[in-house]
Amino acid sequence: MRRAWIALALLGALMILRSDPEGSASFAAEAPSSQDLAAENSASENPSPENLSAQDHGGGHGGAVAPVLLALVIILTGAKLAGEAFVRMGQPAVLGELVFGVILGNLALVNFKALEFIGSSEGVTVLAEIGVVLLLFEVGLESNIREMLSVGPSSLFVAVLGVITPFFLGWGLSAVMLPHLDTLVHLFIGATLCATSVGITARVLADLGRLRSPETKVILGAAVIDDILGLVILAVVQGAILASGTGEALEVSSILVILVKAVVFLVGAVVLGTWLSPKLFLLASRLQVKGILLALSLAFCFLLAWLASAIDLAPIVGAFAAGLILDSLHYRDFLDKGEHHLEELLHPINTFLVPVFFVLMGTKVDLSTFGQEGVLVFALLLSAAAVIGKMVCVVGVREKHLDRLSIAIGMVPRGEVGLIFVNVGAGLMLHGRPVIDDTVLSAVVIMVIVTTLMTPPALKISLGRKVARTA
Amino acid sequence: MRRAWIALALLGALMILRSDPEGSASFAAEAPSSQDLAAENSASENPSPENLSAQDHGGGHGGAVAPVLLALVIILTGAKLAGEAFVRMGQPAVLGELVFGVILGNLALVNFKALEFIGSSEGVTVLAEIGVVLLLFEVGLESNIREMLSVGPSSLFVAVLGVITPFFLGWGLSAVMLPHLDTLVHLFIGATLCATSVGITARVLADLGRLRSPETKVILGAAVIDDILGLVILAVVQGAILASGTGEALEVSSILVILVKAVVFLVGAVVLGTWLSPKLFLLASRLQVKGILLALSLAFCFLLAWLASAIDLAPIVGAFAAGLILDSLHYRDFLDKGEHHLEELLHPINTFLVPVFFVLMGTKVDLSTFGQEGVLVFALLLSAAAVIGKMVCVVGVREKHLDRLSIAIGMVPRGEVGLIFVNVGAGLMLHGRPVIDDTVLSAVVIMVIVTTLMTPPALKISLGRKVARTA
Repeated sequence: MRRAWIALALLGALMILRSDPEGSASFAAEAPSSQDLAAENSASENPSPENLSAQDHGGGHGGAVAPVLLALVIILTGAKLAGEAFVRMGQPAVLGELVFGVILGNLALVNFKALEFIGSSEGVTVLAEIGVVLLLFEVGLESNIREMLSVGPSSLFVAVLGVITPFFLGWGLSAVMLPHLDTLVHLFIGATLCATSVGITARVLADLGRLRSPETKVILGAAVIDDILGLVILAVVQGAILASGTGEALEVSSILVILVKAVVFLVGAVVLGTWLSPKLFLLASRLQVKGILLALSLAFCFLLAWLASAIDLAPIVGAFAAGLILDSLHYRDFLDKGEHHLEELLHPINTFLVPVFFVLMGTKVDLSTFGQEGVLVFALLLSAAAVIGKMVCVVGVREKHLDRLSIAIGMVPRGEVGLIFVNVGAGLMLHGRPVIDDTVLSAVVIMVIVTTLMTPPALKISLGRKVARTA
Repeated sequence: MRRAWIALALLGALMILRSDPEGSASFAAEAPSSQDLAAENSASENPSPENLSAQDHGGGHGGAVAPVLLALVIILTGAKLAGEAFVRMGQPAVLGELVFGVILGNLALVNFKALEFIGSSEGVTVLAEIGVVLLLFEVGLESNIREMLSVGPSSLFVAVLGVITPFFLGWGLSAVMLPHLDTLVHLFIGATLCATSVGITARVLADLGRLRSPETKVILGAAVIDDILGLVILAVVQGAILASGTGEALEVSSILVILVKAVVFLVGAVVLGTWLSPKLFLLASRLQVKGILLALSLAFCFLLAWLASAIDLAPIVGAFAAGLILDSLHYRDFLDKGEHHLEELLHPINTFLVPVFFVLMGTKVDLSTFGQEGVLVFALLLSAAAVIGKMVCVVGVREKHLDRLSIAIGMVPRGEVGLIFVNVGAGLMLHGRPVIDDTVLSAVVIMVIVTTLMTPPALKISLGRKVARTA
């Protein structure tokens, strides 16, 4: 067994030794030399994409895909090992993936630059973006519209309070701490505080054998509504930034237009989709070719994601809507033929692609920003705002006998949803600068880590307190 | 039902209307303007990758991933519909995907350029390349070493004859028809004729209820050996081209070096891997984090694919070796815990990514090349060489009572394997030009289509003849 580890270590060393030339090869392929361009110009109107897709420039190595392959080996192995370490500490695996990404992205601080190519690879970025689109599709698949309409009023109040309060707290905090930035940036920071990621809470509740308690029902119901509200707020803030970027003055009327657009898109997609989807799958079930259920569902998800992006919403909004719409009832003809459930088919794809997103997200955290004055303070205040904002949820619980504190704690973790939002912000431009710059991104990631790390122990204590009181 | 189709058509029209601006947006993102570069230069040493991975340049639309999402919608939908059409004509679905790609890639001939961005998208290319790597991994998983060693001498003779004869026929034919090209190009064209894709044959035999006949056993055994021999020839020819590209004179000794390198890599990977893999999976089975079997196997596949590319072999050679090595015996601890078989986990990922490869392959066929003198003739002669080359297999069958003609016909289809080879050639550079240029690529694709299309009817007639004789 010891020999196996030694062999592995040698293999790892070989990989790292080889990785630098590979990395540079990929940069060379992405930035065509002027000589290449001159040669291509005569043959093609549009030289750069032609050149980008060329596999090889005489240097061998399987071309553009080779560095992506190496990046995937490192990402998948590292993500699982770091995930394992966190799971053993009673923490969610996704935090391990994120922390591994942070380490990977900051190796340059110890002068190790051989792996820098991972964070800047176009291929890895596309895989990560498809990963997050499919993750939101899966989240959407797990909720459905009937369920959403049936959650009790407590869930609704908890959700609305838990979205509005952190939004205003975050906005206010960043307006005070970062007065030099645009109001739209403050709005966006507020938006990143809205999200709830109850995956972690659900996991803790499951570990404690409390998945069927009424508190759990309120939390899970509120989380679904939070996803929708969060995505609507994200859409509105993003729309406002895009409108502002084109030089239009931001008025209440234009915010209303964006809000209407987002709501019309979501409602329209759900209404039209719910009407169309059963017909589409019925037609498709008559086809003989294999893999049609998965291929059609993926195409449906990507179509809505693309449509969302075409009207200036984030692709994840469309992917989530696609997941909401699709219901196993629509494709029961496939199930009758012995086909697997869509969630089962999607699961291996997401096992592959979703860690790529979280690791890549981690690489974007620049640890050196914490040396800058005020960044750590801002990160901690933001974390406090995130926690306090969700504590207001206790007011929303109508049933007197429920454990309100535990419900509020259950809503605290921002997890992957917060990261997804901040990723959208890092890709948006305002007056030539990204909306979420390196320092704000680092602070938001800290907030996500703090809120997620504190939930399992806090929830255990809070639930234990109730059990003690009852006994 | 009719209304559903109308709604779909409207959606399609909307997609196409929107696709052009999206397409240009993607090109703009890939080829940063000088203004962007100037702005970035001060902030970063390495501006182009930073810029390439940036999601957005103030234009909205979810950035670099949006055109990839649209491309995936078109590819997945088109591939399945075209696959269905071919399946209904009694042909393999993969041909439909290829033909759909050819149509997609040649829409410019009818002045429709809105979808041209698909063929030149870096993101789509990376997805396609990962798709073909995972396809070869799956092929490798389906064979295993013990099985390979146990196939009878007939399979071995059939395989060796069926690889060597078409290789020399293809080499000779292209030397006569294309004397202006380098000998290495002739060698490569010969190599593309070696491959056998018995998926189609297996499907026809299954349809005829003959999967357990002795002829089928010889064909399937020979196909596995063909895969290995084909990959070794590919590795040698590719290595010779890479050596020549660096200005070294090509000598018999250097071909020997490459041959040794390829064999040492394959044998070394298999020996070391077979020793290491059970230990690795035993260790991994003690981890608690989810998805470890799939993540570890993918990392293993990508690692071998990358190692292959690092020593100038095609990544698919490494992926195939990884598949050969992994055996369900190695991960039986996972199966005991209720985990799915690796093939099952891999299947949805390949349902998603493999059609991307074949459609993209099709887009590389330039139909306008067939207007050039001699291209169609070359394509047809190449097809003839491919068929005749495999007919020699009849000599290799030792058992007198077997249906030799049916075995030889069963070996004819080149299918996906021929396409994979030609894709490697299109990415290789020799004296600043791709080894497989547009005209040769088109001719090889025609050869693949002809050999694959003719097999089902020919095999049915040949097997029917035997049944008639027996009766």
